[in-house]
Amino acid sequence: MTELSKLLERIAAPDGAAGLEAQRCLDQLTKPPGSLGRLEELARRLAEITGTCPPVISHPVIFTLAGDHGVVEEGVSAYPQVVTAQMVENFLRGGAAVNVLARHAGARVVVADLGVAAPLVEHVSLKAMKIAPGTRNMSRGPAMTRAEARAAIEAGIELVESEQRRGLDLIGTGEMGIGNTTAASAMLAVFTGAPIEDVTGRGTGLDEAGRHRKVQAIERALLVNGPDPGDALDVLAKVGGFEIAGLAGVVLAGAARRIPVLLDGFITGAAALAAVRLKPEARYVLLASHRSAEPGHRHALDALGLDPYLDLGMRLGEGTGAALCIDLARAAVTILTEMATFKSAGVSTAGPEAAWP
Amino acid sequence: MTELSKLLERIAAPDGAAGLEAQRCLDQLTKPPGSLGRLEELARRLAEITGTCPPVISHPVIFTLAGDHGVVEEGVSAYPQVVTAQMVENFLRGGAAVNVLARHAGARVVVADLGVAAPLVEHVSLKAMKIAPGTRNMSRGPAMTRAEARAAIEAGIELVESEQRRGLDLIGTGEMGIGNTTAASAMLAVFTGAPIEDVTGRGTGLDEAGRHRKVQAIERALLVNGPDPGDALDVLAKVGGFEIAGLAGVVLAGAARRIPVLLDGFITGAAALAAVRLKPEARYVLLASHRSAEPGHRHALDALGLDPYLDLGMRLGEGTGAALCIDLARAAVTILTEMATFKSAGVSTAGPEAAWP
Repeated sequence: MTELSKLLERIAAPDGAAGLEAQRCLDQLTKPPGSLGRLEELARRLAEITGTCPPVISHPVIFTLAGDHGVVEEGVSAYPQVVTAQMVENFLRGGAAVNVLARHAGARVVVADLGVAAPLVEHVSLKAMKIAPGTRNMSRGPAMTRAEARAAIEAGIELVESEQRRGLDLIGTGEMGIGNTTAASAMLAVFTGAPIEDVTGRGTGLDEAGRHRKVQAIERALLVNGPDPGDALDVLAKVGGFEIAGLAGVVLAGAARRIPVLLDGFITGAAALAAVRLKPEARYVLLASHRSAEPGHRHALDALGLDPYLDLGMRLGEGTGAALCIDLARAAVTILTEMATFKSAGVSTAGPEAAWP
Repeated sequence: MTELSKLLERIAAPDGAAGLEAQRCLDQLTKPPGSLGRLEELARRLAEITGTCPPVISHPVIFTLAGDHGVVEEGVSAYPQVVTAQMVENFLRGGAAVNVLARHAGARVVVADLGVAAPLVEHVSLKAMKIAPGTRNMSRGPAMTRAEARAAIEAGIELVESEQRRGLDLIGTGEMGIGNTTAASAMLAVFTGAPIEDVTGRGTGLDEAGRHRKVQAIERALLVNGPDPGDALDVLAKVGGFEIAGLAGVVLAGAARRIPVLLDGFITGAAALAAVRLKPEARYVLLASHRSAEPGHRHALDALGLDPYLDLGMRLGEGTGAALCIDLARAAVTILTEMATFKSAGVSTAGPEAAWP
């Protein structure tokens, strides 16, 4: 039995008791029942996922995985491939948006090279897990072998397990990879059956001609590779990417450890969908941080049955949406732990006036 | 010339230079242009309002104003009137949702009694500015005299000016007042011309029969008082409330001092609309923190031309939405102050690939 199959066996649906306990607690607080809306739902879900009420968020980590994509040969990105490596260096220096938003949220960023094309200088904060220097061009053949895709998933699992030993209690997902919206769109089309047109957007800023090239590259990739929608590893290998498979591993490891997973946007949504296709019960740890401006994200969210907490028209990736949502998660927990109850505060509950004639 | 008219004279549209400077800065950061969506817009607006780039948020304050409403005699609330005073005491002890979320956001809560019916015990943190022990029942006559409404506005101005001397640089608005959604709905109907049915919701949890009583009470109030939509002070006096008029004053004082004002939900939206009807240029300092579940809020936002940052189905008031949004405002500023530029990080900008054949 492989490492991966052993992990999948450990993933189960939560029993729900801590979620019910959170709901009982919320209903006693000095506010009309339900009046904090989705903040209450978030508190309840965090309790349910972790099996703990109140849940604790003291060691949130954003996992930002990087990889390159051979399909950029087809002209599917507004930026040159070297930007992947340049941005990884920016992450390591702490100057990228995800660093800024993670620091702001009191979260660490773990940066991992799963398959960046350019060689990266060693750095104390870089997890060097390069499986290959970028995927192959999926519009001409499989992006990865099945073994490579599995190795990338297992690298993602390893990242989480290593952080889990340091107290990790909230996972944020993030990515960097020029060309990776093309891979994510292809995966979405395969997994959901949605038309390629509907799940393919402008990425980091393509014009309409560029978006059209992207659609055509995906069409060729699906034709050439014929990925099997019922075999998530096949889909990941043929039209996914190293960082995307790694993120599927991050999700699965979170699910096995009952650590809540805050998804970021479109790419991490596609990765989560792959994880859920590998093990449906993985869905129970997922939280959607935000709704991306990338049009395919809606399809990923629908397939995952998730409703995002933020909707700010963001489309940067890196883990920026997940980082921004950590504050909401902390706020939700604080409601559970710090608010007075009707009883403790001596506040009257809804009463006779409600029965006014 | 009264204090109020002097203040109104000082309110002007911002010159926009700092907003343009913020946009120039945002466009040089290591991210595709515009990819942080409304977070970028928020950074730009904060710069524009304050006339400073980068803007500074170091002393945010939530102003939670309380007042009672004579119209509760008509059975328009699910909670008894005494809850207003009980919740003020809860605010002073720090156990209410607004306290918890403000602490979480690093903001102070200033609690002011503008017109609570029950006598309140003196407290070092309570601003005692009671104009009268609750408004009169607006469905039988004017809620306040014109002089009372003006006094409430001026009390709100005084609150802001006192905090401004302590470094106030971001205003959050909040309120507490059993029955105040009835007053806010009446104001909305008068100011926007929307049907009473459309702007009247279930408040803290009325059933449909209760909501119907509320609609009827508002119908009678408009019939009996005939408030003049062109005279905001008349509307505030006849169908508003002490805390609502006070909040209009808070908005006007923020506008005069160029301090950004984060609105909370429905009630503070109605107060802001009154402020904008008194002085249209007051609109330039307004930011909508969240979209309330209360149906009339949409009408207030439309009339103010605001699009909220959060949409979490909240309907608690107190300033909870404003408190929750402070973190987003701080995050937006941090993007401006901490992110690397393409130049400083040596990252390539969108290039040749965008011009792929």
